[in-house]
Amino acid sequence: MSTALVVGVDVGATHVRAALGSLESGIIRRVRRMTFRERSGEYVIRQLADLVREVAGREVEEVRAIGVGSIGPVDIRRGVILNPPNALFRNVPVVEALSEAFGVPVYLVNDCAAAVLGEKRFGAGKGCENLVYVTLSSGIGGGAIIDGSLLLGKDGNAVEIGHIVVDLDGRLECPCGARGHWEAYCSGRNIPRFASYLVDAYPEEFRGSRLERLVRNGNLSSELLFELAKEGDEHALRIVNEIGRVNAIGFASVNACYDPELITVGGSVALRNENLIIKPILENIKRYTVNRVPEIRITPLGEDVVLYGAIALAADPPPQLRT
Amino acid sequence: MSTALVVGVDVGATHVRAALGSLESGIIRRVRRMTFRERSGEYVIRQLADLVREVAGREVEEVRAIGVGSIGPVDIRRGVILNPPNALFRNVPVVEALSEAFGVPVYLVNDCAAAVLGEKRFGAGKGCENLVYVTLSSGIGGGAIIDGSLLLGKDGNAVEIGHIVVDLDGRLECPCGARGHWEAYCSGRNIPRFASYLVDAYPEEFRGSRLERLVRNGNLSSELLFELAKEGDEHALRIVNEIGRVNAIGFASVNACYDPELITVGGSVALRNENLIIKPILENIKRYTVNRVPEIRITPLGEDVVLYGAIALAADPPPQLRT
Repeated sequence: MSTALVVGVDVGATHVRAALGSLESGIIRRVRRMTFRERSGEYVIRQLADLVREVAGREVEEVRAIGVGSIGPVDIRRGVILNPPNALFRNVPVVEALSEAFGVPVYLVNDCAAAVLGEKRFGAGKGCENLVYVTLSSGIGGGAIIDGSLLLGKDGNAVEIGHIVVDLDGRLECPCGARGHWEAYCSGRNIPRFASYLVDAYPEEFRGSRLERLVRNGNLSSELLFELAKEGDEHALRIVNEIGRVNAIGFASVNACYDPELITVGGSVALRNENLIIKPILENIKRYTVNRVPEIRITPLGEDVVLYGAIALAADPPPQLRT
Repeated sequence: MSTALVVGVDVGATHVRAALGSLESGIIRRVRRMTFRERSGEYVIRQLADLVREVAGREVEEVRAIGVGSIGPVDIRRGVILNPPNALFRNVPVVEALSEAFGVPVYLVNDCAAAVLGEKRFGAGKGCENLVYVTLSSGIGGGAIIDGSLLLGKDGNAVEIGHIVVDLDGRLECPCGARGHWEAYCSGRNIPRFASYLVDAYPEEFRGSRLERLVRNGNLSSELLFELAKEGDEHALRIVNEIGRVNAIGFASVNACYDPELITVGGSVALRNENLIIKPILENIKRYTVNRVPEIRITPLGEDVVLYGAIALAADPPPQLRT
């Protein structure tokens, strides 16, 4: 099994990547495209099939399985990508279509579930039976392997940790429509609104600052906030530290819910700002958790963690998905 | 296997119960004692062994295994009850001591992990692969079976859902020492402090009320609050509804973390106040969750849910605990 060739596909909000690989070799070669700007599920399927053919190349007949890690929500039972808020396409039946096209088993899970499989097989989680992968990106999500088993749940949406409620006063609204979710405060897309909330809530701390002006003019992006913090801007640092404190609260709840030995962290916000993200989590988590604090670190697989996971998914699918 | 006789033991904060039973018959007979007020682990072990002998009676030689569900924290790897905050005894090596005394396999998990095994085998969770049991009692805890597997985690403390942070402002302190945990607002032991907080935070709503007097005099217990609410006291109802809203937030986070089909609810606070507890959860959860809302109901096993779970644990232990 371990040397069998497979193809892994990472369907992300901005890019779609595919890799030929195996459990033994990891990624052998890869291709990357911008994510499809089409609505049609059929178009997306054709593009995915082309991508698989391209990356498999002359080895296409040797490919034994295909694994897909996709932005969610997905329906793992039917093998369909449903209606990702950050994409145009809807209801893409990847499992049925790709298994017909290539005559091999195809497996679909959401991107973070794939990522944690990749972490265990190829990354920091080797030999670890209890691990959680957290992505701090445009949104916040997670994947978990507990007691050696991937958590999926009734619809494959276990570990939707970005939607843990951290604020019972519900001051900020999440893109999903509910109030008070962790993602509404600390994801790349929502950090500007959290900054704006803090500037309004503590006016004396921010009055007359560059940061206040940027917020008032609607010019503060998550990227700019972290740039200013790296330059030592005290008001930006104040906000980055508060983001870190709320992230520590999120990580504490993750620790309460899964009791992992290891939490690895990926996603663009974390990967680009490693110290500013990880340090306040490590400094604050103990105040908020009762379970033993696990090791917490940036994933060594970086931006490839989902792609590695898709290979692991194809080569060694979790028993719940085997037919 | 299904007709093999086993003994299940429920080590609770106020009572210790034991039952002779089997997968086929459930509970055959039972005994109950007040929880030991001794510090000595040896004394507790002797009492537990006596209890097993008493309930097994003439069938003691036919008992094939013993399952123990205990107030936590427990160390499932070593089979030890560690230092329950609501008990005097410490470091009780139940697995080693009882397996030596009776010459059969002994399994230990925390009470809520046992409870969810009981729910699946004997209660509302039959045929259900994704279920969570929540206890609303002196504390708040949970047990989960996801994709058919019991969640344990590195130390057996996965599903410590009472310690999910619901309040990023950390207004109330949890008995565990951390601030802002769900348990600090909605468990039987902490409800009086949450009531006191609400009376202080909204003085105009409570001024001159019976409830305000009870709070000021330190005479409001959780039991009295729910009694007053049942009598229609509007101020008590206001607080009970706010408890319900925070419970809905807790249940929404449980739904985000585990994506269950079914959540069953037990524990004295829920069992004694079924409507006042369940109704506000059902009314409010949709506002706070993105995953599909599961069925939520009181456990049909009532106060026996842990005892049934201990029988299920002994008769069909989860693979992680088998040696």
